[in-house]
Amino acid sequence: MPTSPIRRLTPYADQAKLDGKKVYHLNIGQPDIATPEGMINAIKNIDFDVWAYTASEGTLAYREKLTEYYNKLGYNITPEDILVTLGGSEAITIAMQTCVNEGDEIIIPEPFYANYNAFARMSDVLVKPILSYIDNGFALPPIEEFEKLITEKTKAIFICSPNNPTGYLYSREEIEKLKELCLKHNLFLFSDEAYREFCYDGQAFTSPMHMEGLDQHVVIMDTVSKRYSACGARLGCIVTKNKEVIQSALKYAQARLSPGMVEQIAGCAAVDTPDSYFEEVIQEYTVRRDTLVSRLNGIDGVFCPNPGGAFYVVARLPVDDADDFCQWILESFDYNGTTVMIAPGSGFYSSPGYGKDEVRMAYVLNTDDLNSAMDCLTAALKAYPGRTN
Amino acid sequence: MPTSPIRRLTPYADQAKLDGKKVYHLNIGQPDIATPEGMINAIKNIDFDVWAYTASEGTLAYREKLTEYYNKLGYNITPEDILVTLGGSEAITIAMQTCVNEGDEIIIPEPFYANYNAFARMSDVLVKPILSYIDNGFALPPIEEFEKLITEKTKAIFICSPNNPTGYLYSREEIEKLKELCLKHNLFLFSDEAYREFCYDGQAFTSPMHMEGLDQHVVIMDTVSKRYSACGARLGCIVTKNKEVIQSALKYAQARLSPGMVEQIAGCAAVDTPDSYFEEVIQEYTVRRDTLVSRLNGIDGVFCPNPGGAFYVVARLPVDDADDFCQWILESFDYNGTTVMIAPGSGFYSSPGYGKDEVRMAYVLNTDDLNSAMDCLTAALKAYPGRTN
Repeated sequence: MPTSPIRRLTPYADQAKLDGKKVYHLNIGQPDIATPEGMINAIKNIDFDVWAYTASEGTLAYREKLTEYYNKLGYNITPEDILVTLGGSEAITIAMQTCVNEGDEIIIPEPFYANYNAFARMSDVLVKPILSYIDNGFALPPIEEFEKLITEKTKAIFICSPNNPTGYLYSREEIEKLKELCLKHNLFLFSDEAYREFCYDGQAFTSPMHMEGLDQHVVIMDTVSKRYSACGARLGCIVTKNKEVIQSALKYAQARLSPGMVEQIAGCAAVDTPDSYFEEVIQEYTVRRDTLVSRLNGIDGVFCPNPGGAFYVVARLPVDDADDFCQWILESFDYNGTTVMIAPGSGFYSSPGYGKDEVRMAYVLNTDDLNSAMDCLTAALKAYPGRTN
Repeated sequence: MPTSPIRRLTPYADQAKLDGKKVYHLNIGQPDIATPEGMINAIKNIDFDVWAYTASEGTLAYREKLTEYYNKLGYNITPEDILVTLGGSEAITIAMQTCVNEGDEIIIPEPFYANYNAFARMSDVLVKPILSYIDNGFALPPIEEFEKLITEKTKAIFICSPNNPTGYLYSREEIEKLKELCLKHNLFLFSDEAYREFCYDGQAFTSPMHMEGLDQHVVIMDTVSKRYSACGARLGCIVTKNKEVIQSALKYAQARLSPGMVEQIAGCAAVDTPDSYFEEVIQEYTVRRDTLVSRLNGIDGVFCPNPGGAFYVVARLPVDDADDFCQWILESFDYNGTTVMIAPGSGFYSSPGYGKDEVRMAYVLNTDDLNSAMDCLTAALKAYPGRTN
């Protein structure tokens, strides 16, 4: 009988001690969910003599299994549309290097995953942020705002849905608006879909890959990290029907020779993960999200939208400087010997001065721990000297 | 009883068919040697619930085992001097990005591993090649030649010993000359030591890490790929005692989050590989090298130096255009239904026009196959229309 995937496990995601305090880690996106047993068994049953290079684009076997996975989602692709990468990070870097020339620009709704900045810098690409707002749950900014930013240097719009850090899930209508924008200005639409599986309240996931007539524009960056709670596998991919992009991306992939052989074997097994695994995981995350959002909105002066996906929320706190607050609660506060580690919002904004009263929390702990963490946060916000209202 | 590591195995390194011909693959550095059983068993016996991120610099456990390995070689390092990377490729890229500013220069003796150019381009670093010559076996070029190339933009000398593609093993005297040069001009000394274990005829391996007074200059790029015949593991590292370099390199590593978790567990086991494994492998490679070099020099008009390490040779052929010859032998020639795939020398030179009559061969096949491949090459050079003497 398969074990439940809902277990709290690794030391890295676990509560560490800080000066003797028990610390609830809401700051990182390392889920405590167990990796599917099929993946682990694929590793345990592995049989090879030489741990050899695979083809730079990934093994045909793995690309065929991925094709099966994506076509169940309605992407209608072939194995030739996939380039296997060393994690989602490499997928993003290679996509930028392939599609955007040095000094050209990509537009990214902010707040966004802070490492996009690092990947852009490494690729000599300029990020043009476009603000989304907590008051409407970080919905897609109006298309007119995108158009104001578009210049002849703009080469791509970059989205992440469900979003890290906001958890916002773009609707089909929003994706359709982006489609029209990319067609009108001949832009790539980069889509980071690391959190695709994590959609709640029965909402459907819509990918730019579901849009007709956009095949030459869409570049998906993906990873097994969150889908199968396999962050340490470093196994991702680029998916695009644009042949020129995939051929050019292959040249970058050839320079680093090969993705991991063992990971691709485990990745084949991962595609056969039973639906029951995801049902159980999504049920668990839904309960956690509901717990966290309800507790946060129950704290005087706190506002937290109810996100449709991923496992993050961005909340507004009654503080003047969330960077200071996050440091203070960790280092100078405790509630019955516990404290909370959370990520300041400013790190997710590229525009200076934004996110100063916001924080990101990952609900990668069980509900008991989330409740304890919220007890601590409630007390902390009462005691914090920099409280604003 | 452990199985012999000398086996011919994966389809990728194996002889493929080309138009019905049996092809001897001497073109790629994928050894046919078996990965140590300890590494494979570490994978089979793996036990975890969450395939989690590790620390960006690598697990302490793996860095401690690597420290044990390096200190047996006399490097005198600590785990803090190591940054674990996703393969040797990432080690090279991060070292370049960390140590060399945009538009600055590194000097690399050529012929050199062609992907250095790709890593340099990705890092906005300029490669200044310095010629080494087949007639003296590709020994270190005279230091005066280096000095002619050094400008205020020069930030590093980059060596690979034992060398890919030439197999040349730098002597202690040559490393000492490089030490003086780097001290005099305050340059980094990058040392790609992927082939460290493969030194023949009882010759000792000398690393820049063995030089006194050079600690702040030396940056080692390493990988388990060749050492343990584990090319598909994508597990490498940077080793340097320069704290500023390791701290700056960590920032690049943090952007891509984590090296592979499973690989680091296997890497710990790899350090305990018994000496007998390497003794057997080195004995096998020595026989292969002797076979290949002797057969090559026995062909009329061919010259091949006898390299001290790695598993490559660069040979001079009596042809006007080795690119053309390599394509011709593969596509338009066969000897009793067999042919040979070899790499043209020009791809390993950055200076235009060099290496036109040279080829690189990897002796990653057993001696019977090497002999058959040389029978084929002998016949091909007799039949080739572009033969020059």
